[in-house]
Amino acid sequence: MAKGNLIVGQSGGPTAVINQSLVGVVLGAKQSKNVGKIYGALNGVDGILGERFVDLGRESLANLNLVAGTPSSALGSCRHKPKQDECEHVFEVFKKHNIRYYFYIGGNDSAETADIINKIARDRKYELCVYHVPKTIDNDLRETDHCPGYASASKYVIQSFMGNDLDNISLPGIKIDIVMGRNAGWLTAASALARDAKDKNSGPHLIYVPERPVTMDEFTGQILSVYEKYGRCVVACSEGIVDKTTGKPVADALIDEVDSHGNKQLSGSGALGDYLVSKVKAVYDGQKKLRIRSDTLGYAQRCFAGIVSPIDAKEARGVGMKAAKLATTGSIDGSISIKRTGGKKYASEFVRTELNLVAKVTRHMPDEFLTEAGNNVTPAFVKYLTPLVGDLPAVGKLKKIAVKV
Amino acid sequence: MAKGNLIVGQSGGPTAVINQSLVGVVLGAKQSKNVGKIYGALNGVDGILGERFVDLGRESLANLNLVAGTPSSALGSCRHKPKQDECEHVFEVFKKHNIRYYFYIGGNDSAETADIINKIARDRKYELCVYHVPKTIDNDLRETDHCPGYASASKYVIQSFMGNDLDNISLPGIKIDIVMGRNAGWLTAASALARDAKDKNSGPHLIYVPERPVTMDEFTGQILSVYEKYGRCVVACSEGIVDKTTGKPVADALIDEVDSHGNKQLSGSGALGDYLVSKVKAVYDGQKKLRIRSDTLGYAQRCFAGIVSPIDAKEARGVGMKAAKLATTGSIDGSISIKRTGGKKYASEFVRTELNLVAKVTRHMPDEFLTEAGNNVTPAFVKYLTPLVGDLPAVGKLKKIAVKV
Repeated sequence: MAKGNLIVGQSGGPTAVINQSLVGVVLGAKQSKNVGKIYGALNGVDGILGERFVDLGRESLANLNLVAGTPSSALGSCRHKPKQDECEHVFEVFKKHNIRYYFYIGGNDSAETADIINKIARDRKYELCVYHVPKTIDNDLRETDHCPGYASASKYVIQSFMGNDLDNISLPGIKIDIVMGRNAGWLTAASALARDAKDKNSGPHLIYVPERPVTMDEFTGQILSVYEKYGRCVVACSEGIVDKTTGKPVADALIDEVDSHGNKQLSGSGALGDYLVSKVKAVYDGQKKLRIRSDTLGYAQRCFAGIVSPIDAKEARGVGMKAAKLATTGSIDGSISIKRTGGKKYASEFVRTELNLVAKVTRHMPDEFLTEAGNNVTPAFVKYLTPLVGDLPAVGKLKKIAVKV
Repeated sequence: MAKGNLIVGQSGGPTAVINQSLVGVVLGAKQSKNVGKIYGALNGVDGILGERFVDLGRESLANLNLVAGTPSSALGSCRHKPKQDECEHVFEVFKKHNIRYYFYIGGNDSAETADIINKIARDRKYELCVYHVPKTIDNDLRETDHCPGYASASKYVIQSFMGNDLDNISLPGIKIDIVMGRNAGWLTAASALARDAKDKNSGPHLIYVPERPVTMDEFTGQILSVYEKYGRCVVACSEGIVDKTTGKPVADALIDEVDSHGNKQLSGSGALGDYLVSKVKAVYDGQKKLRIRSDTLGYAQRCFAGIVSPIDAKEARGVGMKAAKLATTGSIDGSISIKRTGGKKYASEFVRTELNLVAKVTRHMPDEFLTEAGNNVTPAFVKYLTPLVGDLPAVGKLKKIAVKV
């Protein structure tokens, strides 16, 4: 069994519960006699490369619990995907500080980084336990039923769409809301849970995800068709929706900036929403008074303070604890997956999976969760997500008993 | 004392608690023997002109209470400011249906509409009780300490900025968030309460409001100055900020669409935020890697489901009840103001004020609430708003005890 120090880092976009996983790792590791110092790397792999460490072992339990309930990465994050030579450097830093436990909380890029460092350690016969701890609001990791962070982000998206649909009923028109999700539509799909079971006309009426490319003619036509029917239309649209004609994301042509992964900067701009509004306006020339708006839900989706799914918080803590437990009791590497158990009543358990099965590849929404027409989700998806988000606000509508005049 | 039927309508942008006021009017009116039918006008004055009424007297108490806790205008709203001849038509409709009580829930435009109809009734010696019931997330009505709807919208804005500041700490850069407020900065100013009292570097670092015009050079210079100091900068900016050079709102040049009041359509577009980002980018040519983003907080500010200030909900109900009580016990017209009472412990009472004192004019933030530099709020403002929003989420940060390497 490895004896030595531990380091944990956080990477990629924050979530509302990523600190639960951090605290899970710390508290799990504290239970083992094999772990010496418990270090946190500031700003993910950047903090390892720069040897910017903090001593998490000296944080009080009370403060750790407060931090666990706070959104966004408490250690700081990074978007840096290290190259092979940087991973070698990471390994040298680990040797220097007698790091024998390495935990990286993040998405599939982080799993890949962990996997590379893991391989280096194996090659050099250096005893290092490497665990990837999953987090992503995108819910796009393989091998797991769902990802910590997704349910809380979903809860935010749902409550936002509940409000936006009520707003749209009150002042009718077309509303196109842009939801995070570059490659997969999981978070956009969550908006379906905003629908009011007692009101069959409630929105969002249309849901567009990257998995289902659409032409701009189909997009505007479907929206105007709903508008003709109900006098209003609420649309949930992934930031990564793909133009069927070009095969490329619609946003690609609108945005210049790319990140270090070569991805277009989709968030933090209203460009896509404004563009889609202009497309619908261009087609709709029948009436002057079409009220059409777009909101880009923005970073609040991943960091809003005060909207957390209790199950998500519990599971995010759980995957961190599980990783620490496995690592300190002899299982040398892996990632943690969530397996859905239980029947009618939701339950889950945490299982070890291979690092390389989680690395790199995006898990798209399966066909069974998307309708044939490609602009809505199926009841199977609603059933999948419902237990994860927990209680939602109650919505009341007037009976509107008409008065004869 | 007038005997006859009652009609109530909702107007303008919805709020999270506007239905509390509606239910307050209905329940207050039910206590009076002078009130016959209790009608709701669908979509404000449009529903009166079109005689589209629903019977609110036949809604169950349980459903009314559910509706009261639901954001957005349950009767539907409108943006229509009726002209004199339309107000004459409204009066004819009132006569036809023996309406003797008219309640209009809205902002200063609604107060003006109520005032005009009130004058017509007085001129024709028709006994009509006319009450304006205040609501606006903009908090820009005169005569009142604050407006129902403002505190809940503030709570949403605060929790959004709490999260955005934590997000910005985790992935540092410049973040410019656009907050609703065409003419007054009240809601943008609320973002100040997102600051972490235990962390003097917490954001928002700069707050720009329409009351303090700023040149684009000052704007970009101040932001970059904070960025140089902290390595990051979070900015709260009103959608209505004014360019000191032109004396006009910055957004004016960016947006074509105007509403029926001749106002530019500011919400439902990311154009202003994207423009301000481009301005900062243009000045900052020192480093390639400046991470700068903007979110436009959007309609969620006024309609998000599940974020309500308990005091706001209670007061919104209270102003509706008070209006109904005054109207049905002999006070013929007016608007309801909230007066802050109590000492250290917050308390308030509802008082009648003249309709024409509330109509039309916007209440801007007073000088005592804005700093000399014009890019921040004073402690007096924080003291003013704090009791209104109620409890906020607790924020924890790691002590970050450095490890010597």
